[in-house]
Amino acid sequence: MLDCENMYSFYNDYSEGAHSRIIEALQRCNDSQETGYGEDAFSLEAASILKTTMGNVDVDVHLVSAGTQANLIAFTCMLRPHESVIAASTGHIAVHEAGAVEATGHRINTVAVIDGKLTPSDVQNVVDQHHDEHMVKPRAVFISQATELGTIYSKAELEALSDVCKNNDLYLYIDGARLGSALMSSESDVALADIARFADMFYIGGTKNGALLGEAMVITNPILKKEFRYFLKQRGALLAKGRVLGMQFVELFRDDLYFDLAKHANAMAEKLVGGLTALGYAFATRSTTNQIFPILPNAVIETLKIDYGFYIWSPAADEHSTIRLVTSWATKETAVDAFLSDLKRCS
Amino acid sequence: MLDCENMYSFYNDYSEGAHSRIIEALQRCNDSQETGYGEDAFSLEAASILKTTMGNVDVDVHLVSAGTQANLIAFTCMLRPHESVIAASTGHIAVHEAGAVEATGHRINTVAVIDGKLTPSDVQNVVDQHHDEHMVKPRAVFISQATELGTIYSKAELEALSDVCKNNDLYLYIDGARLGSALMSSESDVALADIARFADMFYIGGTKNGALLGEAMVITNPILKKEFRYFLKQRGALLAKGRVLGMQFVELFRDDLYFDLAKHANAMAEKLVGGLTALGYAFATRSTTNQIFPILPNAVIETLKIDYGFYIWSPAADEHSTIRLVTSWATKETAVDAFLSDLKRCS
Amino acid sequence: MLDCENMYSFYNDYSEGAHSRIIEALQRCNDSQETGYGEDAFSLEAASILKTTMGNVDVDVHLVSAGTQANLIAFTCMLRPHESVIAASTGHIAVHEAGAVEATGHRINTVAVIDGKLTPSDVQNVVDQHHDEHMVKPRAVFISQATELGTIYSKAELEALSDVCKNNDLYLYIDGARLGSALMSSESDVALADIARFADMFYIGGTKNGALLGEAMVITNPILKKEFRYFLKQRGALLAKGRVLGMQFVELFRDDLYFDLAKHANAMAEKLVGGLTALGYAFATRSTTNQIFPILPNAVIETLKIDYGFYIWSPAADEHSTIRLVTSWATKETAVDAFLSDLKRCS
Amino acid sequence: MLDCENMYSFYNDYSEGAHSRIIEALQRCNDSQETGYGEDAFSLEAASILKTTMGNVDVDVHLVSAGTQANLIAFTCMLRPHESVIAASTGHIAVHEAGAVEATGHRINTVAVIDGKLTPSDVQNVVDQHHDEHMVKPRAVFISQATELGTIYSKAELEALSDVCKNNDLYLYIDGARLGSALMSSESDVALADIARFADMFYIGGTKNGALLGEAMVITNPILKKEFRYFLKQRGALLAKGRVLGMQFVELFRDDLYFDLAKHANAMAEKLVGGLTALGYAFATRSTTNQIFPILPNAVIETLKIDYGFYIWSPAADEHSTIRLVTSWATKETAVDAFLSDLKRCS
Repeated sequence: MLDCENMYSFYNDYSEGAHSRIIEALQRCNDSQETGYGEDAFSLEAASILKTTMGNVDVDVHLVSAGTQANLIAFTCMLRPHESVIAASTGHIAVHEAGAVEATGHRINTVAVIDGKLTPSDVQNVVDQHHDEHMVKPRAVFISQATELGTIYSKAELEALSDVCKNNDLYLYIDGARLGSALMSSESDVALADIARFADMFYIGGTKNGALLGEAMVITNPILKKEFRYFLKQRGALLAKGRVLGMQFVELFRDDLYFDLAKHANAMAEKLVGGLTALGYAFATRSTTNQIFPILPNAVIETLKIDYGFYIWSPAADEHSTIRLVTSWATKETAVDAFLSDLKRCS
Repeated sequence: MLDCENMYSFYNDYSEGAHSRIIEALQRCNDSQETGYGEDAFSLEAASILKTTMGNVDVDVHLVSAGTQANLIAFTCMLRPHESVIAASTGHIAVHEAGAVEATGHRINTVAVIDGKLTPSDVQNVVDQHHDEHMVKPRAVFISQATELGTIYSKAELEALSDVCKNNDLYLYIDGARLGSALMSSESDVALADIARFADMFYIGGTKNGALLGEAMVITNPILKKEFRYFLKQRGALLAKGRVLGMQFVELFRDDLYFDLAKHANAMAEKLVGGLTALGYAFATRSTTNQIFPILPNAVIETLKIDYGFYIWSPAADEHSTIRLVTSWATKETAVDAFLSDLKRCS
Repeated sequence: MLDCENMYSFYNDYSEGAHSRIIEALQRCNDSQETGYGEDAFSLEAASILKTTMGNVDVDVHLVSAGTQANLIAFTCMLRPHESVIAASTGHIAVHEAGAVEATGHRINTVAVIDGKLTPSDVQNVVDQHHDEHMVKPRAVFISQATELGTIYSKAELEALSDVCKNNDLYLYIDGARLGSALMSSESDVALADIARFADMFYIGGTKNGALLGEAMVITNPILKKEFRYFLKQRGALLAKGRVLGMQFVELFRDDLYFDLAKHANAMAEKLVGGLTALGYAFATRSTTNQIFPILPNAVIETLKIDYGFYIWSPAADEHSTIRLVTSWATKETAVDAFLSDLKRCS
Repeated sequence: MLDCENMYSFYNDYSEGAHSRIIEALQRCNDSQETGYGEDAFSLEAASILKTTMGNVDVDVHLVSAGTQANLIAFTCMLRPHESVIAASTGHIAVHEAGAVEATGHRINTVAVIDGKLTPSDVQNVVDQHHDEHMVKPRAVFISQATELGTIYSKAELEALSDVCKNNDLYLYIDGARLGSALMSSESDVALADIARFADMFYIGGTKNGALLGEAMVITNPILKKEFRYFLKQRGALLAKGRVLGMQFVELFRDDLYFDLAKHANAMAEKLVGGLTALGYAFATRSTTNQIFPILPNAVIETLKIDYGFYIWSPAADEHSTIRLVTSWATKETAVDAFLSDLKRCS
């Protein structure tokens, strides 16, 4: 059993505060007088570093507070009133954003998927079914890398999606709330530069990888860059002290901190997968990122629930359920070890 | 002349980071595992402390990132599609929020004002002009305390506005971006409890009074409380790490820090007013808060611009202009002294 | 072969103008001076007659121009910003209204169905899947009577839907674009009074049953009546000459014209069904209303296409396709006979 | 006194039904089977005739039901989310459309005017006041020809407005609810071709000049033509029986009926102006169209109110009020004579 008075949380990757270097950066730079609303020296430096990191200086970078905010602003920018966005039925915008995209006036065309991933033929089918002005007109595709089910797109898959988008005049948008974990996956052949190459717009998630808050929106398609700060302002996303976001992204990307934190999260998940597999347990999806979905007997789940926090994702056959375990930059290896040891005892 | 290599900024009250106690709090509480999206221990504690401070436990408190965000969510909640909000023509929602309220579907009925303040008869006039379904139906009143011109409403004025609202079935909403400065004004007879008594909804501004970011929305009218977290989520305002906001408000309100910081800002503004008055300068508005609007000769302004940052607000007669000087919790008295001394020299 | 120079259209039920009595009524009442925007004597009389016809004087009646207009206004009225409407995946709002509901800010929760009909358990499932503020909150149910596939709900089915709605605090809305045909179906046990009893809001379709244009929205739930004319005005639905709509509904309902026209449409469809069945053809859905979906060999379809207009609905197995044949108040029996005779010849 | 049992209405120009030729056309063409949703032979012919009439075949024509509908769809098409439209404070969209434009997400920047007319410097001032992303971005200008106060723009004035629009990247939109009356004004030097030359989009009002309902939207700017039918459908403006609109515009424009009807309306207004002037009365605005605004003693107004319907527009000095008298294609000269004679008696 884990040596702590409370349960240890594998609920999500935003339970703790920020990496200590982030806090230190906030403290170190606290006194300087800065321009407001994202035009401070830190935000400008963050943009510059991010451009270098992705090997593309010809992009626009805007820092916002949260993922739902990033997503709703993205589609407000991309879509004319009659246009829609295609997403997996498990996509964050389709399930967990309280109708944020529809609140800006747009339909999400959802496609039922098993592993959280959209295929080019999914996209083409939706486009083909929308052929006249009595229907919405699909204009964008939303994917997450990593997906909400922990899976990732390979470079070939992203390229194929990019192609089907280009062929059908669709923008490709990538939700990168967990982009760090996806890029650092042991199975990933995708680099940040690839993301910038395939997506018309995407965001690099800070909140779930070491920051207190903050997502870096990146616009690669010139058409979408125009007057984007108006969209930010209108949706309440321009922080007066944009420096708070800027400092954090400078710190995460001035060396490899961002990637190192993601590697740690993945390593902790991998250790969990290894331990679970060794005990003979199966998984609902094949994940090499920081979210895993093992299938456990309900009795075992009950026991584990005493000392560990996690979500029961869905019921499975024969008195089993799928649970979700999430690791992060902050996950303690001792907690992972304790979890596996407790699991072994009650299996 | 101020002894620093750069100019000293009186541009606004969000140039610096956070008060040192805020940074320390973030560091101190960084490691605990917390529930996400505003249900963490710190946010709950902040709500509890704020209720005590305003002497009303029967309110709902929600912490958000920024003022425009607070305002747009407030009116999304208050107004049915055909309803509008009445505001001064100088009101923040009417000028400086990029149409955020209209983007949620609602008209702002603006009233031309001189000193930033709306009167009961302004409100009644707008209501009287809207009498059938060919027009929008005014349903809310927006005021700022302090206003965008540094002025404040007295308790009697707030009560009169509250009365005209009640008589016309209007919600009263108070934008408190600079509520601290207003409450601590030497001329104020208004307490936080009064704000909570007169307003149906309001927010207590953190960003402009010592926090890194954060505004505390307070809902006093029970009708407006229902399902409010949906509104927050849908507009992208629920931070995964809501703790960041919670911690800051705990720190600002667990003792009198919030009020002390506002007092300092006001004292610095008062010193500037005193110095300017002594030199014979007039002001565009009568302000006892942290924004002042002196009228200076253009030649003097040119000289001051070398070492000090401030906005030129509007042209005035005879080669004069109105400028805006803003002080804050972080304003250094040495900078104020230097400004006045430089001003004296070039006057 | 039909004796006419052009093809005869079974494309839809809005190919012709209006029933001759409608045109006569427009002519007869053309000169009177009337109040505008739906407050004319004819609109008031239409409302009065409709209330009598449905045996409920405690409803509000508003006349609008078109079905999509009726639907989008209905949900604008029923739903707060975070609320959604549940509909069959084949529902008109989900497919053929160009995202009109989403353009007012609301998600449609679609449920895959086979026969166009939503069941109580469909509704309950959607409600159960939406349990917190990260998701939209279902607040209304949309059904069509008859459905887009020609099927109808029985009284028991409507009652069960009404019950599940009441149990879950959902409004029940019925799109009655083809309500006449549904009520007059040989298999229907539903009266107009039942529709008014079960639905919180619905509309009685005029356009597809003899009118030039016009749908009568009926609000039975008192909560939804308030300030409804504002919603009409704001969405452009208040015609200056509302008399045009009023006159038509007076004429359709001052005796049984509306029901007689629907009976004719159904009789024509029934004759087609009888002839097709006699020739051994099957149908994709079981319809006793004015839309039928026979499955024919593609070669036969090609031949029929020369002289008759109709939509090919979807491909079926073995070189067959489902086609849609629509009859109306205006369908000529000679055309039906000719169609069946031509079909027999080429089968 | 007028020989009729009821009062005679000068309330507006939509009191009666349609010109008899319109009714006859509806009857004559009632039986043909037509394609739905605006693609019928009549709508196509109407578009063709209108293009010829305005001497420009390079425009798109779309027929809709009502003016508010036309206006809200126009700005939905023209404006990106952060963009606004400039209008006179008396403009129809700013006062009498229940916030229809805001409901699509856009601010109206209103300018106080005396005679209902916007000047180039009004427009330039608004543009100049909006300089960064904290504000909305003006992108269109709304004017009415004739204005809501009966006044008209000259060709030179329209050209100057067009110039200021072009210089500032603004679309010019003309609400032509009363375009017929404006073009036929004795003082007008503007032809329909001029309207088509200066406006990026406008509509030709049918409802107030002889039609039962219907406005012809004309798009001259190629950028605005793209996918416009989606906008119509999404806002509920595509009538299934678009023929109803098509037939009316064919009838109004296949010869000079539309212009003749407007001439009659103007002649009746002119006769009223002449009679009122002869009696020594003044007017609030100088109008040569079908709306006039005489200033009468309140006692006289009370007497006239017994036999004539009209709106009291606003109070004037010394126990006088401004009233609005509206004439139309249907106004009877005997009624005008009776009004003037009764006025003479009670003056």
